[in-house]
Amino acid sequence: MNKIVVGIDIGGTNTVFGFVTEKGDVLYQNTIPTQTHEAVEDYVAELADHIKKGKESLKEESEIVGMGIGAPNGNYYTGNIENAPNLRWKGIIKFTEIFKSHFDFPIHLTNDANAASIGEMVFGGAKYMNDFIVVTLGTGLGSGIVINGKVLYGHDGFAGELGHVESVPNGRQCGCGGRGCLETYVSATGVARTATQILSERMDESDLRKIPNDELTSKMVSEAAAKGDAIAIETYNYTTQMLGNALADYVKIASPEAVFLFGGLTKAGDILFEQTKAQMEKKLMPIFQNKVKILPSQLDDNAAIMGASALAWYEIHNDKK
Amino acid sequence: MNKIVVGIDIGGTNTVFGFVTEKGDVLYQNTIPTQTHEAVEDYVAELADHIKKGKESLKEESEIVGMGIGAPNGNYYTGNIENAPNLRWKGIIKFTEIFKSHFDFPIHLTNDANAASIGEMVFGGAKYMNDFIVVTLGTGLGSGIVINGKVLYGHDGFAGELGHVESVPNGRQCGCGGRGCLETYVSATGVARTATQILSERMDESDLRKIPNDELTSKMVSEAAAKGDAIAIETYNYTTQMLGNALADYVKIASPEAVFLFGGLTKAGDILFEQTKAQMEKKLMPIFQNKVKILPSQLDDNAAIMGASALAWYEIHNDKK
Repeated sequence: MNKIVVGIDIGGTNTVFGFVTEKGDVLYQNTIPTQTHEAVEDYVAELADHIKKGKESLKEESEIVGMGIGAPNGNYYTGNIENAPNLRWKGIIKFTEIFKSHFDFPIHLTNDANAASIGEMVFGGAKYMNDFIVVTLGTGLGSGIVINGKVLYGHDGFAGELGHVESVPNGRQCGCGGRGCLETYVSATGVARTATQILSERMDESDLRKIPNDELTSKMVSEAAAKGDAIAIETYNYTTQMLGNALADYVKIASPEAVFLFGGLTKAGDILFEQTKAQMEKKLMPIFQNKVKILPSQLDDNAAIMGASALAWYEIHNDKK
Repeated sequence: MNKIVVGIDIGGTNTVFGFVTEKGDVLYQNTIPTQTHEAVEDYVAELADHIKKGKESLKEESEIVGMGIGAPNGNYYTGNIENAPNLRWKGIIKFTEIFKSHFDFPIHLTNDANAASIGEMVFGGAKYMNDFIVVTLGTGLGSGIVINGKVLYGHDGFAGELGHVESVPNGRQCGCGGRGCLETYVSATGVARTATQILSERMDESDLRKIPNDELTSKMVSEAAAKGDAIAIETYNYTTQMLGNALADYVKIASPEAVFLFGGLTKAGDILFEQTKAQMEKKLMPIFQNKVKILPSQLDDNAAIMGASALAWYEIHNDKK
């Protein structure tokens, strides 16, 4: 019988879930809105129901052997979602435990960036790597760190918050309550904030001046840059500088084999990778220079499900050891 | 028969070596100057000779079962000392290999800060910890990182250079060729540089003004602070701020259970620990707050030998697994 796992990616808006084989083939995929239920138990019940129906719809008879969940503020050690700012369910939600009342197979949970790093290790570009980091560039900046072939969870399950290292002392306000966090500069929102800042500092003409501040997106900046807009180009220069600096510091601490960049912002293409690498190299000591690759994630469009299901497969194989 | 290991700590000036039991008792200790021989082979031969004589001098008959070496720029993976700026032997020195021509037992080498972290794990305050960092505050700032119970070496053996993360963009010149590295602020030399800077900025009277710049030491600053010298007190405030900031960033990345501070600078006492902790907490997000201990190293005066010999014992037990 075909063995499959369930991969679930919980976002603030949508929950994507599907069945994935050990080879990484996605046999089924579906999406439901995340936050329609007041009680988290009702949300899980709906999701469990969809999973059961989804399984019945498969052509080939299959056995579900595990489930992996990627969730904001997901704690691998406890299986809980803890104080996630973007979810309506507050406090500590015993997410895995609630799910276990619906299914008998093993269920594991971690945060989305950690899931991405496991996805990269199991299905993507890090199959033969023991030490690497995945940096997810979306609305914010997340990171999944792998050391000695294992995800770095830290003593409490919350390691990997590279997005909140202090890039600029007393810098931009961050949603975490701090100031100057890396993700306030290097993320989709960070790019928009940088463009706004540079508009204030420079006098160059720019189409970006016509857009109200709260409508300006990183996509608009990227499109303007492609057309040669000086403000937009300077915005990307600054963004890659900040990212290159942060990666150089990370390399000095952990000396990874590679950095994978993942998410919407990487669509800016080669220039993002080249400029970031150049800046990182500039800040490295000789013993670290020209050793660390900066690569695009090798997970495809199903990345979120691939990451979550990779967690499930990873745990199955780790249990056997 | 009594089983012992040899611990060797190679410093720029002196080499300390000794025999240590599995319980951490130092049975013998001796020191020779490090850099009297032009050829590294002659230095190793002298050291090997001293070790053999030292063993004969032991009261109880003993068997040497391993050797651990802590050395500047020591690479655990290769057993080499690679481009150590403070040693006269340039390039890549196959240190462990040279030693193996003198002895039959297993020989392992790492850098001094990593040795300190293993010492803390085997003999010190981290016996029951899986995730911690040892920060050595001497002339420079070194770090030995333990994750999941293992030293973090990175893909190439050079991880753990926390002293060279960029604390101040375009800040102070560093011996590594970079600028604004943490160790140019937080180390014995960093403290002296900060005092000099504050002397330039402030007009307070201070005994420190009477000392030529190149004679000013962190010990003088510490003594002046104890007497209430405003410049010296401000110097320590600044130093602990910089250290607290860097530790907060490290916590966000690796979420350790504890930070151990080690070395001469920690003699400044409680105030160093309290101020550093307060600053670190200020910079942490709620999920990390009040979780991470900042502790003095629990290795005693023989710390250097303890660290190196802990590496030997650690490897012996790891081999058995």
